[in-house]
Amino acid sequence: MNMTCQEAAKWLEQQEDLLILTHRRPDGDTVGCAVALCLSLRKLGKTAYILTNEDATALFDSYWGDTLAPAGFEPKAVVSVDIASEGLFHKSAEIYKCQVDLAIDHHGSNEGFAQYNCVEPEKAACGEILYTIITEWFPVDADIALPLYLAISTDTGCFVYSNTTPNTHRVAAALMETGIDYAGVNKRHFRTKSYTRLRVESRIIDTMDLHDEGAIALAAVSLRDMAELGATEEDLEDIAAFVGQLKGVRTAVTIRELKPGECKLSLRTGDGLDASKVCALLGGGGHAAAAGCTVMGSVEEAKTSILWAIRQIQNWN
Amino acid sequence: MNMTCQEAAKWLEQQEDLLILTHRRPDGDTVGCAVALCLSLRKLGKTAYILTNEDATALFDSYWGDTLAPAGFEPKAVVSVDIASEGLFHKSAEIYKCQVDLAIDHHGSNEGFAQYNCVEPEKAACGEILYTIITEWFPVDADIALPLYLAISTDTGCFVYSNTTPNTHRVAAALMETGIDYAGVNKRHFRTKSYTRLRVESRIIDTMDLHDEGAIALAAVSLRDMAELGATEEDLEDIAAFVGQLKGVRTAVTIRELKPGECKLSLRTGDGLDASKVCALLGGGGHAAAAGCTVMGSVEEAKTSILWAIRQIQNWN
Repeated sequence: MNMTCQEAAKWLEQQEDLLILTHRRPDGDTVGCAVALCLSLRKLGKTAYILTNEDATALFDSYWGDTLAPAGFEPKAVVSVDIASEGLFHKSAEIYKCQVDLAIDHHGSNEGFAQYNCVEPEKAACGEILYTIITEWFPVDADIALPLYLAISTDTGCFVYSNTTPNTHRVAAALMETGIDYAGVNKRHFRTKSYTRLRVESRIIDTMDLHDEGAIALAAVSLRDMAELGATEEDLEDIAAFVGQLKGVRTAVTIRELKPGECKLSLRTGDGLDASKVCALLGGGGHAAAAGCTVMGSVEEAKTSILWAIRQIQNWN
Repeated sequence: MNMTCQEAAKWLEQQEDLLILTHRRPDGDTVGCAVALCLSLRKLGKTAYILTNEDATALFDSYWGDTLAPAGFEPKAVVSVDIASEGLFHKSAEIYKCQVDLAIDHHGSNEGFAQYNCVEPEKAACGEILYTIITEWFPVDADIALPLYLAISTDTGCFVYSNTTPNTHRVAAALMETGIDYAGVNKRHFRTKSYTRLRVESRIIDTMDLHDEGAIALAAVSLRDMAELGATEEDLEDIAAFVGQLKGVRTAVTIRELKPGECKLSLRTGDGLDASKVCALLGGGGHAAAAGCTVMGSVEEAKTSILWAIRQIQNWN
């Protein structure tokens, strides 16, 4: 059943002992939404925790605070934030499949796996939806504003991606006025690169395949590259956006070899090619301009698969 | 004499045949402000032009439209936008030294060279000041909103620099609602890099000097580097921000050899070192977190000079 933000706020007010789920390979949006929701529910006098996400990188360490669920916590209600499908549950969240009461999400491809679904695809970040829900209860304070700013800024590349709307900016302004260290968030997430990250970017430039006179770029980071450069998961954060910035590129594919025989693909598109349709052909999903999928096979096989999928959708247009 | 935005708007309403000046090595803020002001003055029924800036790069070609002054235009009033001192006049603007009627600017270091000065240093971009002035006359339409969005987004690195305020975001939201192609501006100015640019960045990483255990980075792009990489002025746009992003760096210096024996230095600082004070010691100026100066000498001499100036200000703190 679909719910508006107002209905979701009312429903949440009636729950006790809530557990909040984030998606696998968590980004700033899912982390920020979970923390902001957890703190807000506690401010309403409720017991609320976030399920520890074993995929979380050190980049988000400072945001969790005391929100992580202790062993043995038995929730009476389960809420997911920024999760489009049960396929995106992290490992320890899998026991909650078919048990999510409320899904709060901004993915148009949301599969409606929860009992109640508060999904607003026109929002750039799930954090904008959380802002609407939380301000049904009280004005946000700095503790809640900081994770919401993290959510909104990271999902828009700091207000640069085409998903950014006037509402995104207005919510950001309201959050900043609570006195949060937004400059610190910006510095950490958008203005800081390690030497290793810069070397990864340089490797990508050197090894990229271009098709259609440079309009399609296929970039890959293999396990061997990772080992040679000493790169960690954190060094690859949002690496898909890096390829998309090359002048003349309209369709940017970034392939990451997760383990031998398994690759994760990220697709960024402009000019009307629907990235979520392309990725759906390979079992994935996402947004019109940014989507992803995981395929079995080597990096070379992944390149062949995604090129095939791009050609299919190009021909259907 | 100082003027508020309201007073500047009133004063402008009383002028005829206006010429607008931009600063040398023009950036998006000075270009965007000039175009928005010119179009707005024309909407008020006035004759208004921008003085052609011989330093302008192709990056801004699409914004000028028909605003550039024809040969022989004789202004009755001269207005400068985003110019902190007469030392920043471009070559063909020099004949207007001591003749600027109104300076609209957001640099705290503005030297008050005009008869009337509308200076608001708390504004991230001069474009925010222009927005206030123009909305004294009428709501901005898309033609005026686009150059203002260019101004505001470029001077904040697309809302990522620490100068960004809630007002910056609110003005951006209002501009976006006029229906402008802000995604196109973002794509062009913040999400597009040429291969040459990426090679320049790679060269900088390879040749950077680090001091104070990596807290101070001195990077240089010599004339020889430019020639070897085939880099143009456009490939170096906002290159100072690139060095500042390296993890652990608190004071980032980017040196550009302009011609043999003359270097331009850009300084970005965090943690309380006032960049404008450092640059003032070498005859330059700017903001607390971003400033610049031009020094005579080789790249190596420029490095010695700026390190000396940094040490002076560090010791005074």
